[in-house]
Amino acid sequence: MTRLTLAIDAMGGDFGPCVTVPAALQALAANLQLHLLLVGDADALSSSLSKADSALRERVQIIAAESVIASDAKPSQAIRHSRGSSMRIALEMVKEGKAQACISAGNTGALMGLAKLLLKPLEGIERPALMTVLPHQQQGKTVVLDLGANVDSDSTMLVQFAVMGAVMAEEVLAIANPRLALLNIGQEESKGLDTIRDAAEILRASANINYIGYLEGNDLLSGKTDVLVCDGFVGNVTLKTMEGVVRMFLSLLKSQGEGQKRVWWMTLLGRWIQRRLATRFGHLNPDQYNGACLLGLRATVIKSHGAANQRAFMVAIQQAEQAVQRQVPQRIAVRLEAVLPKSD
Amino acid sequence: MTRLTLAIDAMGGDFGPCVTVPAALQALAANLQLHLLLVGDADALSSSLSKADSALRERVQIIAAESVIASDAKPSQAIRHSRGSSMRIALEMVKEGKAQACISAGNTGALMGLAKLLLKPLEGIERPALMTVLPHQQQGKTVVLDLGANVDSDSTMLVQFAVMGAVMAEEVLAIANPRLALLNIGQEESKGLDTIRDAAEILRASANINYIGYLEGNDLLSGKTDVLVCDGFVGNVTLKTMEGVVRMFLSLLKSQGEGQKRVWWMTLLGRWIQRRLATRFGHLNPDQYNGACLLGLRATVIKSHGAANQRAFMVAIQQAEQAVQRQVPQRIAVRLEAVLPKSD
Repeated sequence: MTRLTLAIDAMGGDFGPCVTVPAALQALAANLQLHLLLVGDADALSSSLSKADSALRERVQIIAAESVIASDAKPSQAIRHSRGSSMRIALEMVKEGKAQACISAGNTGALMGLAKLLLKPLEGIERPALMTVLPHQQQGKTVVLDLGANVDSDSTMLVQFAVMGAVMAEEVLAIANPRLALLNIGQEESKGLDTIRDAAEILRASANINYIGYLEGNDLLSGKTDVLVCDGFVGNVTLKTMEGVVRMFLSLLKSQGEGQKRVWWMTLLGRWIQRRLATRFGHLNPDQYNGACLLGLRATVIKSHGAANQRAFMVAIQQAEQAVQRQVPQRIAVRLEAVLPKSD
Repeated sequence: MTRLTLAIDAMGGDFGPCVTVPAALQALAANLQLHLLLVGDADALSSSLSKADSALRERVQIIAAESVIASDAKPSQAIRHSRGSSMRIALEMVKEGKAQACISAGNTGALMGLAKLLLKPLEGIERPALMTVLPHQQQGKTVVLDLGANVDSDSTMLVQFAVMGAVMAEEVLAIANPRLALLNIGQEESKGLDTIRDAAEILRASANINYIGYLEGNDLLSGKTDVLVCDGFVGNVTLKTMEGVVRMFLSLLKSQGEGQKRVWWMTLLGRWIQRRLATRFGHLNPDQYNGACLLGLRATVIKSHGAANQRAFMVAIQQAEQAVQRQVPQRIAVRLEAVLPKSD
């Protein structure tokens, strides 16, 4: 196994180094081949690392950055003033070949824009898309995109998302001839927006795509499809809705019976039940699959939730490791050439 | 209490009279003031009713209809050929004053179009919207609209939905000065689609609306707002996503430990746990709040899920009863006059 170096925007997200540094150390402990470039305020990062195990510390390099792009900044303005920011420098590390991928929990729009600017989209891709892999009810996984990289997508973009999602399912999840569906508000052909109907027509005619039709929101976790494609606005709202409901259930399960006076055996019983339920539903915990991959670029960029905790951010780092090892951008590039119509 | 007559499109939905007739009888048993007009195939309905308790049967009148609008029909074509269909006749019963409200589990687009055509929108409303009331984590309720009556909504429509939702929360849920939010993909002002940002600007400037800003999908059930407004496509996908996740959890809870060989006390214990969990999560079961209200018309129209079971369709009938008793359309009309800008 070869050395793997990733660049982390250590200042991004709601908690900055308080989350990114411990998560980075955890990821280093889990993979001895991993090296990390932590990009951000050098003093803050040094002090966060001061108590780290020296064996882990050796595999970390601090890259100084003067500024941070605010989470609530307008992307266009943030990009214009991005020089010297931790996000931009982390992406530049990838561009210059010093790191193989970049992870950020910062401003989504700015990350998308800067990544496109610095790392360039693959041949034939107009706009990269945010993709995640969700666990579903049939014990398998579903590739879902776009999750918010593009607020408004036309039919050509939806078709490109479909191609990238199908490649992802085939090459990375090892699903042969993956089923692909468009997210819509009904299963009948006449339903939904024009952009979706137009995309459906193109996909239906495409020999390289196993297009199975429309699916509705309630099928997000049902496992009826291997790839689910939607525009970024709808994808973002859908994913967050799902996460909100899952978190609510998990917290209700956790608080099950709390605050009640009980005899000792009921308390023990309560804990046993909680453990069983946690095992049963744990794989649905959104922290387990944090990290959306920005597909369609010439290198790997992982977007973590802004509100990610240590565990969730560590999962995002591991997503980047996997994407690099599985050569996701390279595999997509090869397949795109075969599938997408030539523009000239 | 005065007599209440509702018209039911008895042929609509995935199961037609198999669901609508038993649900109707259940609703009649629960409310002695209720009278129902069952619109559909007279022979099929008579035979479905033949075994009904005669006291209930007396409060049912069968209204013959020759045809049914298919669930997968294109709304524009369905409306053009709607004469004599169970959905249209049910709406005509309301128009002619023979019923005070109409319930259908049929084609959403056709119901929306026919209702607008026959019952007319309220003064100042361009397009009616589908609204539901969701239980949230803080033990309260949130009014959510539009859930799919309009696939594409401009900012004026979003503002009208907001006004109707606020009136609904104030007059029907008795929430004083209800908080109102727009569903978006971030909380910052710069986020999302132009239509949403434009609507936000109008709402922020509106003295009659307690506008609190944007909320994201994960806040659907958090209780942070009393009214949540979105376009019909996004609302439909969001609601169905939530329902899908809730149903998955409920079914996982139900199957908890099934198929395992156990000693007797573990079986008993398992049942006890299931009952407790069912009590805890039962109010989130989508069957409990089936029935979206088509707001913005001069009379009450309730759209049930096409896949509603008997219990869920009965809940939809009861939604119609409540909307009539609480005079929802009249109250909205009065408030709209005060809130909406005059067009001339």
